[in-house]
Amino acid sequence: MKTILITLLMFFSIDSITAQNEMIVRLTEIEIDSNFVKEYSEILKEESSASVALEPGVISIFPMFQKDNPIQIRILEIYANKEAYESHLKTPHFQKYKTTTLKMVKALRLIDMSVMDPENMKEMFSKL
Amino acid sequence: MKTILITLLMFFSIDSITAQNEMIVRLTEIEIDSNFVKEYSEILKEESSASVALEPGVISIFPMFQKDNPIQIRILEIYANKEAYESHLKTPHFQKYKTTTLKMVKALRLIDMSVMDPENMKEMFSKL
Repeated sequence: MKTILITLLMFFSIDSITAQNEMIVRLTEIEIDSNFVKEYSEILKEESSASVALEPGVISIFPMFQKDNPIQIRILEIYANKEAYESHLKTPHFQKYKTTTLKMVKALRLIDMSVMDPENMKEMFSKL
Repeated sequence: MKTILITLLMFFSIDSITAQNEMIVRLTEIEIDSNFVKEYSEILKEESSASVALEPGVISIFPMFQKDNPIQIRILEIYANKEAYESHLKTPHFQKYKTTTLKMVKALRLIDMSVMDPENMKEMFSKL
């Protein structure tokens, strides 16, 4: 009985480790043209909320901007896996965002991140 | 009756806006000495989980590192307000983190951020 329990627990933790390993976490750095701060923000808000609402594999698209320099956008993006990210790129809401903001974006850097403490990831946002 | 309801609703939304305005959201950029990648990570994991578990005003301390360059640490920090942040700095777990990692940190940049879509903040992390 004990062996079965240990084997089951091992399977569950392997499962959970695999799920975390598949997750894509990204910190995107975007610099926008200062003429479009408000317009860009409206478009990105629409895109990020649509993505999280409509796509099960889009876990989070959380846009921020630097308080002292609002042309500097930072987005924390979390996708369940590579497939979810690739399917996201094909959605109408992402395509709309991409085409309408093309002229507003001066620099774009996609930086893949690793979560330091994946076991505590859920807790880290449970107080929101 | 309708007027009372509208007045009540106004109070609630003013309350919620005030709470969001008071919130401190920060993206901290840290560069660490490459000799201490594992050691630094252990100390920060301990500090971040203790802070969120023990301090009601510490909403999130979410550390990541760049996949291609693990000496580049990024931490998303969310505090309920200025008081919560200042009290956090005085806690034994923060003090322990600060003193033990002092020699490991090569550069530190605290960048105050604004959340682009505060109304959707909770939803952005509800799928974790």
